[in-house]
Amino acid sequence: MQLLVIWPELKDKDLELIAAETGADVLTGFTGEEALKHAPEADVILGGFMAPEVLAAASKCRWLQAPYAGVERILAAKWANPEMILTNGRGIFGPNISEHVIGLMLSFNRGFHLCRDNQNRKVWDPHLPIPFRELTGATVGILGYGDIGSHVAKRLAGFDCKVVGFRQHPGPGDEARNVYGIDRLPEFMTCFDYLVCALPETEKTIGFLDKNLLHLLPSHAIIVNVGRGSLIPTEDLIQALEEGWIAGAGLDVTSPEPLPADNPLWAMPNVIITPHHSGFTAYYKQRALEIFLENWKHFTQTGKPAINVVDPSLGY
Amino acid sequence: MQLLVIWPELKDKDLELIAAETGADVLTGFTGEEALKHAPEADVILGGFMAPEVLAAASKCRWLQAPYAGVERILAAKWANPEMILTNGRGIFGPNISEHVIGLMLSFNRGFHLCRDNQNRKVWDPHLPIPFRELTGATVGILGYGDIGSHVAKRLAGFDCKVVGFRQHPGPGDEARNVYGIDRLPEFMTCFDYLVCALPETEKTIGFLDKNLLHLLPSHAIIVNVGRGSLIPTEDLIQALEEGWIAGAGLDVTSPEPLPADNPLWAMPNVIITPHHSGFTAYYKQRALEIFLENWKHFTQTGKPAINVVDPSLGY
Repeated sequence: MQLLVIWPELKDKDLELIAAETGADVLTGFTGEEALKHAPEADVILGGFMAPEVLAAASKCRWLQAPYAGVERILAAKWANPEMILTNGRGIFGPNISEHVIGLMLSFNRGFHLCRDNQNRKVWDPHLPIPFRELTGATVGILGYGDIGSHVAKRLAGFDCKVVGFRQHPGPGDEARNVYGIDRLPEFMTCFDYLVCALPETEKTIGFLDKNLLHLLPSHAIIVNVGRGSLIPTEDLIQALEEGWIAGAGLDVTSPEPLPADNPLWAMPNVIITPHHSGFTAYYKQRALEIFLENWKHFTQTGKPAINVVDPSLGY
Repeated sequence: MQLLVIWPELKDKDLELIAAETGADVLTGFTGEEALKHAPEADVILGGFMAPEVLAAASKCRWLQAPYAGVERILAAKWANPEMILTNGRGIFGPNISEHVIGLMLSFNRGFHLCRDNQNRKVWDPHLPIPFRELTGATVGILGYGDIGSHVAKRLAGFDCKVVGFRQHPGPGDEARNVYGIDRLPEFMTCFDYLVCALPETEKTIGFLDKNLLHLLPSHAIIVNVGRGSLIPTEDLIQALEEGWIAGAGLDVTSPEPLPADNPLWAMPNVIITPHHSGFTAYYKQRALEIFLENWKHFTQTGKPAINVVDPSLGY
């Protein structure tokens, strides 16, 4: 079995571990050229962010394991083997992204961004121009109630928050736990103290959270977006923040990315920007390899990976 | 009954509410002079941060309700009536201070302080020089396991943390819930990923967390102090941070306060300083008045306030 590894974060000792655990012939494609060269031989690919040509050349590949969650670029490419199964890194990032989300909410409440500016000037000034709101007891909407959303909700329980979740394809029993289809969002918007966005990018989500919806939020509401920047039209978000429809936005994702230096969001006093790094965690590699090896076991036994299979028709 | 209110945050409508709820003659002492003038008449004082002369003049006062937790300055003053009962604001600040604590922990994990600097320069740079640790699953020591500490612990449960608490006077049953006397701290120091300090200032706590103890922490540990700066000798803390005994410190309190501009802590890359504002909350006044009015009811019925009574021998 030929396993092509296209994931430059992996070091020699990781490759040795993979070889030992899988028994596969491990090929590496850490440069575009090398990846393209080995693509036609690969039965399985472990990696992501590859050039579309690699997918177009991987004619034997029956399974691609991506080590992250947002696979829209892989889905948009042409696959040499249309039967190839794609699995992603769902579940890797729940702990760290939920910490990122809650950290951003608390940064607004506590004014940490303003304290940082004062620290840089060596100024001790408790007179921060913020209302000192609390997360405790707040009502939080979670738009995109999948792995990330449920990790956020679990942590918010300790703050006695009321959580309402929304997902593109709610399942049976979801309503009983306060999770609804995203079409139901408008009914709830006026109740939210915080709105957490963790949706993947799909046809339906692009531009979904537009000015008509933003206008429904209470003026003290804080939006946190760790999904995709395309969810919220940037000009609508700027208008909502400038005109006080909402109190603030914590943005780990923007549209476009990187956010150009002349975008007004950078300098707005009620915006905290982080550079799409909510997914970063010290446990990334370890967790991704756990998923891959679990899937490898099933793949060699049944011809198919078992977990985190992406439905191309849903996009995630 | 003469009630002297020395708490400038209270507005006319608050005073009207107090008059209506208590039926007392409400005197106000919003300036030092005014407070001193009315002090001899007061049966009860609601307020704090008053000049020692006021306490020395309040010969009739049987009960003083302070609207905050750290009453060391009131205890250090000479009271005209040594039988006066002091009650404090314990319980007001649990939600906001615990949010402050967890927000500081998450700021380190997610590098928000570095992101703020980049945002000010309009630079999108995901290459942050931090290890992207997680709070999830971490072991957290809480030094000062009272109202604040237990609010922190409750919120950490959502992050699957293992919590070990320490208090000056552990009660029966404390050990069963992993809470110990502070003398037991050294045994546990090597296990902590985070050490949260929320101790009041007493004879025993001043200088308690010194270099001998700091040296026991793992090098990746983060300290968060929201109690009193005097707990950690400043020169020991600086040494620990400079020499990498610990990974960082989130300090809402310092010694001295305000922290002088020439103190090295300001410019250390692994220090986040907030200006002793963890106690600030939009719900401050509302919660303090609830405590006061609850105590007022008991005081008028029994001659004694019922909740948040300070034991002068303990200092809190």
